[in-house]
Amino acid sequence: MTSSGCDLAVAAEHVVDRLDALAAIGADPAGGVTRLAYSPEDVHARETVARWMAEAGLQVWIDQATNLFGRLPGSDPGAGALLSGSHLDSVTRAGALDGPAGVVAALAVAQALCASGTTLRHDLVVVAFSNEEGTRGTPGMVGSKAMAGLLTPEDLARPGDGAVTLAERIRSAGGDPQRIADARWSPDRIAGFIELHIEQGPVLHSEGARIGVVTEVTGQLSVAVTITGEANHAGSTPMNHRRDAAVAAARVVLAVERLATDGHVRVATTGVLGLRTGARNVVAGEALLGVDIRDGRAERIADAYARLDREVTDIARRTRTLITLTPGTCQSPVATDRRLTEHIIDAADELEVPWLELPSGAGHDAQVMSAIAPMAMVFVPSVGGVSHSPDEATDPSDLVLGANVLLRALVAADAQLP
Amino acid sequence: MTSSGCDLAVAAEHVVDRLDALAAIGADPAGGVTRLAYSPEDVHARETVARWMAEAGLQVWIDQATNLFGRLPGSDPGAGALLSGSHLDSVTRAGALDGPAGVVAALAVAQALCASGTTLRHDLVVVAFSNEEGTRGTPGMVGSKAMAGLLTPEDLARPGDGAVTLAERIRSAGGDPQRIADARWSPDRIAGFIELHIEQGPVLHSEGARIGVVTEVTGQLSVAVTITGEANHAGSTPMNHRRDAAVAAARVVLAVERLATDGHVRVATTGVLGLRTGARNVVAGEALLGVDIRDGRAERIADAYARLDREVTDIARRTRTLITLTPGTCQSPVATDRRLTEHIIDAADELEVPWLELPSGAGHDAQVMSAIAPMAMVFVPSVGGVSHSPDEATDPSDLVLGANVLLRALVAADAQLP
Repeated sequence: MTSSGCDLAVAAEHVVDRLDALAAIGADPAGGVTRLAYSPEDVHARETVARWMAEAGLQVWIDQATNLFGRLPGSDPGAGALLSGSHLDSVTRAGALDGPAGVVAALAVAQALCASGTTLRHDLVVVAFSNEEGTRGTPGMVGSKAMAGLLTPEDLARPGDGAVTLAERIRSAGGDPQRIADARWSPDRIAGFIELHIEQGPVLHSEGARIGVVTEVTGQLSVAVTITGEANHAGSTPMNHRRDAAVAAARVVLAVERLATDGHVRVATTGVLGLRTGARNVVAGEALLGVDIRDGRAERIADAYARLDREVTDIARRTRTLITLTPGTCQSPVATDRRLTEHIIDAADELEVPWLELPSGAGHDAQVMSAIAPMAMVFVPSVGGVSHSPDEATDPSDLVLGANVLLRALVAADAQLP
Repeated sequence: MTSSGCDLAVAAEHVVDRLDALAAIGADPAGGVTRLAYSPEDVHARETVARWMAEAGLQVWIDQATNLFGRLPGSDPGAGALLSGSHLDSVTRAGALDGPAGVVAALAVAQALCASGTTLRHDLVVVAFSNEEGTRGTPGMVGSKAMAGLLTPEDLARPGDGAVTLAERIRSAGGDPQRIADARWSPDRIAGFIELHIEQGPVLHSEGARIGVVTEVTGQLSVAVTITGEANHAGSTPMNHRRDAAVAAARVVLAVERLATDGHVRVATTGVLGLRTGARNVVAGEALLGVDIRDGRAERIADAYARLDREVTDIARRTRTLITLTPGTCQSPVATDRRLTEHIIDAADELEVPWLELPSGAGHDAQVMSAIAPMAMVFVPSVGGVSHSPDEATDPSDLVLGANVLLRALVAADAQLP
């Protein structure tokens, strides 16, 4: 680099005003933002950011997966690119920050470098990944998977909501699913990736930290649980004759909770819980549960699953029900790159703000990018930990601070990375 | 009476063949019988039984509530009537016995008396009550309530499924809701009522008893439970930051179960259990439960509700959720008449069959009739305790035996009752 990183700062309006502008694209009459991947609103947001990129002097292009890129060329054509960004799509009635905060921060960094006449050695590429959320029955993190070469023909051909395939969705938004392989980045083209994101959890806000330094994106295992008992009359069936699926389900919910409260994994949740045909005066015959287990270490997730399996066997015996566990694909935990992480910590220290190391419990494009590049993440606080909700909020000064931390970390990474 | 009851017996075909014939009326293509109250199938069944009554020489009439009656006159015009019967309507995809077994048994009794030239002192009135089940959003036990004078104008005017009022349903089946008060029987017109019914529970079948002598129709309290926690991200919300409605719901289900397993009430059931918006990766924000508590003593139900309320307060505190209990109308327990009950026991002893005293956990027209007459019930075994299901079954020999017990108990009651 040709200028000291210490004097650089992003323009606050490049962060705050642009987030406001994006919040208006797909503003939901029922509150919040609904900007589903590949929808006209999503394309509109992408075009808006593309225009800002072009106005900032970046080289703009959109790939076959509808990922949006803006390049600030570096001084060494032989070096890989430094990438930073996040996504623009949202869930239904989402907040305005989950995704866009990381895109506008990266763009503000590039503009701050431009404005100061700073040239990095590496290309700095601002990225807006397509379809991180995986709405309408599509898989999530599609854009980053395409970049990492992890998107399969099966993913593209599988019908989602309304029997529309992912390939059709991508094509409808201007992509080219038949040439999706061309969206792939080989690892030698990327020096590193840093994503800024809101925490989506309560830790930073409740601890009074303004910057989160992500240690890992936690691994996740989903488990479908079906319980078969026997539907019976609630008045005429004595307690000792029952095979009550609701009672068995209650015991499973508490066994799931204990996986975490007893310290076997970081968090464990029963987010789906219902009876197939519930009526107040009928002993439940069948229950369906959806369980989510997360931890930073894959072997702890595997141990917890084995423990749950043993507990469920005991519950089935005691309640005389049949309980089936069906584990889904286990998403392995991904550690962040230690050197990039140190640059984030150094930046927060330079700016003299309280920071905290924490895992990311939510999944992010960063975990996919780790397949092809060293990866790190900067978190900013979510007020009250709320996300995927119109009430999602981050103090604007924290958003700007996060962008400045990102700026300093990227400048430091530029000096350190090969 | 003019002949010894000891020699009398019903004709087995009057029980078995007629139940087969009724099972064909409303036979559901999906299995079982669907003969919803006031439907064309229900009217068809009523007309069929009315024809059988007339063929048997009974005086037949239908009242304003569409209850069907068939009278075998007694020798003492000043005595009240002995009534026996049950209902012909069913739930969706029901079995063939819940209701019809008691109607055909009472009719078979009347025919056995006719055939033997026996004249009782009291009129014997065979009754098929209308709308016991309370399907399509109507209240249940409508016919017996009309007879007891317990049907209110509000009941008649309240819209059920499809916004159709009970009054409209009754009218559509040939009744006269505006003159429903004329369906009322003053207590001095009824000497006693005995209803034969399948047990709808597993006790008789599993204990090897062939006759059930009902000690009481248990009281019932329905309780709606709403739990409000906080919906949050299942990955990024630490366990100690959660207000998990699913975990609170699980604890409530187990607290409800303990009301019965700890001996505070006979049975307690959570038959409705669900989350308002469940997703595997979301900590549940709201849960809805439906609870059913039954016992033969009203004060034990009240004590159990108070205990549940205390337990729920503790659960709400521990899970940091808001839990609201909304009790419905408490149906008071109703004891059967001891003298009528002794006649049933004597009959079973005379026929040398194993019998058992037990409460009725299900509600029956008999509990309504107890408001205007001494009341008793005869149960026959339900194979496996199954009811409200196409798999509902009773051994045909038990159905005939039950009718013969009913016959002897009615003859004995005729001699004893004023």
